[in-house]
Amino acid sequence: MGSAIAVPAADNGHQVTLVGTHLDRHIIAALKADRAAHPRLGAPLPPAVEPLDIDELQAEHFDSADLIILGISSAGMEWAAERLRRHMRSPKPIALVTKGLVPNGAEPPGTYVETLPNALREGGLPAMPIIGIAGPCVAQELGQRQPTAVIYASGDDAPAETAARWMRTPYYRISKSTDQVGVEACAALKNLFAIGVSAMRAGHPGSGRSADTFAMNPTAAIFSQAVIEMAQLAEWLGGRRETAMGLAGVGDLHVTVGGGRNGKLGACLGRGMRLSDALAGPLKGETVEGVDTGRSIAGAFQAAVGNGTLAAAAFPLASSLIGAITNDTPFAFDFESLGRP
Amino acid sequence: MGSAIAVPAADNGHQVTLVGTHLDRHIIAALKADRAAHPRLGAPLPPAVEPLDIDELQAEHFDSADLIILGISSAGMEWAAERLRRHMRSPKPIALVTKGLVPNGAEPPGTYVETLPNALREGGLPAMPIIGIAGPCVAQELGQRQPTAVIYASGDDAPAETAARWMRTPYYRISKSTDQVGVEACAALKNLFAIGVSAMRAGHPGSGRSADTFAMNPTAAIFSQAVIEMAQLAEWLGGRRETAMGLAGVGDLHVTVGGGRNGKLGACLGRGMRLSDALAGPLKGETVEGVDTGRSIAGAFQAAVGNGTLAAAAFPLASSLIGAITNDTPFAFDFESLGRP
Repeated sequence: MGSAIAVPAADNGHQVTLVGTHLDRHIIAALKADRAAHPRLGAPLPPAVEPLDIDELQAEHFDSADLIILGISSAGMEWAAERLRRHMRSPKPIALVTKGLVPNGAEPPGTYVETLPNALREGGLPAMPIIGIAGPCVAQELGQRQPTAVIYASGDDAPAETAARWMRTPYYRISKSTDQVGVEACAALKNLFAIGVSAMRAGHPGSGRSADTFAMNPTAAIFSQAVIEMAQLAEWLGGRRETAMGLAGVGDLHVTVGGGRNGKLGACLGRGMRLSDALAGPLKGETVEGVDTGRSIAGAFQAAVGNGTLAAAAFPLASSLIGAITNDTPFAFDFESLGRP
Repeated sequence: MGSAIAVPAADNGHQVTLVGTHLDRHIIAALKADRAAHPRLGAPLPPAVEPLDIDELQAEHFDSADLIILGISSAGMEWAAERLRRHMRSPKPIALVTKGLVPNGAEPPGTYVETLPNALREGGLPAMPIIGIAGPCVAQELGQRQPTAVIYASGDDAPAETAARWMRTPYYRISKSTDQVGVEACAALKNLFAIGVSAMRAGHPGSGRSADTFAMNPTAAIFSQAVIEMAQLAEWLGGRRETAMGLAGVGDLHVTVGGGRNGKLGACLGRGMRLSDALAGPLKGETVEGVDTGRSIAGAFQAAVGNGTLAAAAFPLASSLIGAITNDTPFAFDFESLGRP
């Protein structure tokens, strides 16, 4: 995603420094040899994109930057914050493509737009504008300049507005939101719910059919339920319900279902596999963000259901998914939990 | 759909009279010979379902009924109202599966839950409870008892509650709403928007790709835009925005995209075909409900945009679809209309 988002940045006339992590050395090496040779993007990078190995990263790169975009996986957030603390000497707007939730005991988990500023402040850095980037965006398609609609969110409008002005192109369409926590919450939660909808598509036993016939009614029922539960959980996490209706919610869920690692895991669970077997088998070595989201909210979710802050009956899908993730039991969804008297 | 919905009714222990229109004589004849021989349902009808030819329909059938369910196409609504006026002698709750909008000059169109009571009153009949039935439901899947989640709506809760109690089964899950107009509006509008999303899936030129590569980003962008516009149009028609977030909106749009006649028409438009060519070619002789919806709202929509009641910039997708339908021009969607500064 970091490589992909460099494309609209370069098309806007910016000089882009594309920094790989230690896991991306082969990508950076390939790009240094040939900008067109990105091993996964399926598109050449513009000449204005300068690939940089993590060992080459210096404070000067930050000094000269207008905007820093973090496109690492959620597992790399602490590592990234440490690098920012090490190299940054002045405040810069930071845009986050990375999505995830940070456990907070029995309290609702936090989002990275809330935890990253704390991590930077603890390193002695001043406050910086944070922009959350969300919405349905498959990296390869953005790299190929296919029309893509995303949402940039900041607590007050100015940072998102500035970043959007720098990044918007005819194919990269940027809406804005001031519901930063809601956008981040939906962007993380949609990965969890995509597992459930994908399980139903793949022929979950509860769908009343075999794996080789596509049943639209059960899938649509679960898709709809996912949106309703996502809106309520986004509110619980401090965001606004209606944000789930937009690009970070419904739009991103639509693209995540059936695709990527969350969709692949959902297909495994839908065929009756347990999480541990899926992660040791078809998804060996992969990071499945929806599983991380499930684990991050499990404790606080169960506490909130236990003390009545959240009504258990309103979250049959989230409960089933969290159960399958935390207990390693087969994913079971009881359709009778929907449309009760 | 009339045949399909007879299945949960019969499974609830009800005697069901399944009345075909004059267009369904072959279906009724086939069922009279063999309950398992429905030409299109793909499932046998329960023994408690009694098929009846339209010529056999008598006032006595209505006298003994607890609930009347209309599952005709929108083109048959006037015809159906006339039959009700001819045969009904006492008020009965009427549930409407049929969806559509009724043009009302420059005013926002009405829904059938509003126009049917008028049509019955003009025939001298007393007021009757009306229940709107919506949500993602492919008839064949319901007939096969696959899990299906729908929404029953009435202005006050009682009629929907009673009908839901009579109809709910372990596989036919019924939620309720008192936003009857919003539910009906979304159920009609989703057919129009499904044409647009399906056009994008099929390789609309604006999606920046060829027809044989599936691009998720443009499709998800349009899906998301469809939900946002549907919510605003539902409000314009007298309903509540949040209804678009539920089964009648997002859920039903999810199942309609890519399937059925609206999806088929969308695929034609996405490949650059004009409406008239699609209706004279691949869709010859078919009723495409989304086209009817587009025609029903076109005049009032354009009037509302003209006088500023609706903001033109908020409806790029509806405008494009209505244009393609009323002007018979190729469907064109400008992605730059999304995420403007």
